[in-house]
Amino acid sequence: QARFYKLRTNKAFELFVISVIILSAMMIGVKTYELPVQVEGAIRVLDFAITLFFLCEISVRFIGENRKLKFFKSAWNVFDTAIVILSLVPIENSEMAMIGRLIRVFRVLRMVSIIPELRMLLNSLLKALPQLGYIGLLMFIIFYIYAAIGTTFFASINPELWDNISISMLTLFRVMTFEDWTDVMYETMAHYPLSWAYYLSFIFLTAFAFLNMIIGIVVNVLED
Amino acid sequence: QARFYKLRTNKAFELFVISVIILSAMMIGVKTYELPVQVEGAIRVLDFAITLFFLCEISVRFIGENRKLKFFKSAWNVFDTAIVILSLVPIENSEMAMIGRLIRVFRVLRMVSIIPELRMLLNSLLKALPQLGYIGLLMFIIFYIYAAIGTTFFASINPELWDNISISMLTLFRVMTFEDWTDVMYETMAHYPLSWAYYLSFIFLTAFAFLNMIIGIVVNVLED
Amino acid sequence: QARFYKLRTNKAFELFVISVIILSAMMIGVKTYELPVQVEGAIRVLDFAITLFFLCEISVRFIGENRKLKFFKSAWNVFDTAIVILSLVPIENSEMAMIGRLIRVFRVLRMVSIIPELRMLLNSLLKALPQLGYIGLLMFIIFYIYAAIGTTFFASINPELWDNISISMLTLFRVMTFEDWTDVMYETMAHYPLSWAYYLSFIFLTAFAFLNMIIGIVVNVLED
Amino acid sequence: QARFYKLRTNKAFELFVISVIILSAMMIGVKTYELPVQVEGAIRVLDFAITLFFLCEISVRFIGENRKLKFFKSAWNVFDTAIVILSLVPIENSEMAMIGRLIRVFRVLRMVSIIPELRMLLNSLLKALPQLGYIGLLMFIIFYIYAAIGTTFFASINPELWDNISISMLTLFRVMTFEDWTDVMYETMAHYPLSWAYYLSFIFLTAFAFLNMIIGIVVNVLED
Ligand code: NA
Ligand code: NA
Repeated sequence: QARFYKLRTNKAFELFVISVIILSAMMIGVKTYELPVQVEGAIRVLDFAITLFFLCEISVRFIGENRKLKFFKSAWNVFDTAIVILSLVPIENSEMAMIGRLIRVFRVLRMVSIIPELRMLLNSLLKALPQLGYIGLLMFIIFYIYAAIGTTFFASINPELWDNISISMLTLFRVMTFEDWTDVMYETMAHYPLSWAYYLSFIFLTAFAFLNMIIGIVVNVLED
Repeated sequence: QARFYKLRTNKAFELFVISVIILSAMMIGVKTYELPVQVEGAIRVLDFAITLFFLCEISVRFIGENRKLKFFKSAWNVFDTAIVILSLVPIENSEMAMIGRLIRVFRVLRMVSIIPELRMLLNSLLKALPQLGYIGLLMFIIFYIYAAIGTTFFASINPELWDNISISMLTLFRVMTFEDWTDVMYETMAHYPLSWAYYLSFIFLTAFAFLNMIIGIVVNVLED
Repeated sequence: QARFYKLRTNKAFELFVISVIILSAMMIGVKTYELPVQVEGAIRVLDFAITLFFLCEISVRFIGENRKLKFFKSAWNVFDTAIVILSLVPIENSEMAMIGRLIRVFRVLRMVSIIPELRMLLNSLLKALPQLGYIGLLMFIIFYIYAAIGTTFFASINPELWDNISISMLTLFRVMTFEDWTDVMYETMAHYPLSWAYYLSFIFLTAFAFLNMIIGIVVNVLED
Repeated sequence: QARFYKLRTNKAFELFVISVIILSAMMIGVKTYELPVQVEGAIRVLDFAITLFFLCEISVRFIGENRKLKFFKSAWNVFDTAIVILSLVPIENSEMAMIGRLIRVFRVLRMVSIIPELRMLLNSLLKALPQLGYIGLLMFIIFYIYAAIGTTFFASINPELWDNISISMLTLFRVMTFEDWTDVMYETMAHYPLSWAYYLSFIFLTAFAFLNMIIGIVVNVLED
């Protein structure tokens, strides 16, 4: 076990693992291009080799761990193990092939799990999320109320944008990103000439809430 | 009264009220979908039950209040009471049905009135508004002057965008959000080749005023 | 003179002047709508009355000033006097009418000159401008270089967007505001498949310079 | 050498060099317009004169330098020398003419090399870049994973936007800038009604990472 532990903490080994992850990521990219048959064969072999290597690496890290239970207490270790084991499942029909490809895509995330700086960065990002809780709830309430009003009045004008509360919320998100929002507005203004007030009040409310969200984060960060 | 006061401050009671508000909000959402007749009937019954429950709840809170006059000094209590009483008005013709639906939509805002954190958040948002007073006025003046100029020169080019000062201000707000603003500009540049200066100066002025508004808020927040 | 000075510093007088400015601003707005003939006549009379009132007001302020030379040292006084005198010039032919209308539009700016808070706000905005000098120059250089490259390569593809360096700079400003920038890009990518690098590097450069400009202002403001 | 050193540090000489750079920049702009033949001839002569002047100026600065080796240790000196020498290469066929024009465009950058404030500004901008390293890597990983998923599912719907991982990343950048992103979304929603989750999660992730990047820079700047 001592030897595994040594290997596990070896800098060269870590760099090699990172290289294999990059290779695995590049293969995912290469596979999106149209390829000659031989290359596709080579990639299948390489993919199998990478899966095997990841299995060995996880094993090394597991065996190298002093207390086995502690190993699965780290969410990243659980994630890494799950990705590796799921990659081992043989893929046959096309439905499953899609899922198999997706699992391989998530192997790119192993990059985050293996580079400590990225792991820390993600942790600090996640730590900022709960602060957003109440303002997120407030924003959801704003969206919900406006979507209900929008559906009530505009559903008959353009069902594609306002048919029900879910679609209306999507349309309002579009308005919030200023994406062709005037097209949406001009259409309803033809029936309700005052509906500009609906859009403008929504934009001001969400922009204001959004601004406060950002300021809240900045202040919290500066206080630390 | 003591028992009502006890009930009113009971945590479980509060959670139950929140659940009913969420149920009421979900019903508003569900009603925007096309529903089978039985479900619509069930919803009508449920809606009535919720209205009754809200009436009871407001009564409990009112009776539980020691000094009755203080109750209506809170804007939220007035808002809650108004929403509940307006929900009781029977709706018959379609015109009124629209208003009835809108009142039910605003019941979602009871969420804000009942969760203290949301109430505080909204209060702090509202407190930031007066700071924006003068810069808001300055921005309005900028909009007004540019809209007057825009109408003077461009009304004959595209009346839909520049017919009078109100429509011109709406068009300028669109330009400020960068929403297909070049289409607006290219159209007027065909007649006045130098009109790009009008749009660019407007964008720079408003962007600069907007930036200063944000910085002003950030500085005010940091000073506290 | 003492009486004029008293009148000039009178709070009620100031409020009355502000009311007349607002009335004058509203008239500018009203005139952009189609009006019946009688109203138009009434407006012409009212406009003349306002011009006369402004003339009196400026005279009061000038006579009320202790040292006459000091009066014209204030840029705002010069601006107010110029606007009032130019309003007096009789307008006959349609060419001049346009200019006359524009001068009346700028009377709205008297709002800024008469409300001290707005005057101070504008002064603080103008004070922030010189800080932007060098970063503005850097941004102009970036725009100029990219516009020169854009004209060299893309002028033959779409002369409307890339015909010469001025039009190219306008197109690049459009790209910077993300306004249908992919349409511009896809068009040139059909001829130069790698031209996405041109747009992306431009967006990153300007976004980065813009970000630094904002941070620079924030830091300067916080240091005061 | 002392005289060259004196000339080199002379303020008037520096201003003259800046004027020649501005003249050179203006010529690049003028050449993008259609010009009469005589003007084109004059420009060719002027261009030659400017190239010669730059050659002399670099020579003066090189000879005026006490330790010759130190001269080429400054990246700006190397850049200036390279631009001047490359300008001397005679241009004959049209292929090379394009490159010759590009080199002349980069002469505008000499503006940055000669004005110390711009040089310092650029240095401080470049110093901020390494901080962005890890968050840039994280963003690249997000883009890569989403592009791989996008290609897997949407390539058959619209190959122009999702054919391979590079094009998908460009499309995702477009989505991130909110440029007609709903058109992209509605197209895929016709086949996969839940694909809005793909776009919204991507927008939230990148917006959140971007926000943290900005906050990170602000905090770093404020700490100095
Ligand atoms: Na846009
Ligand atoms: Na757009």
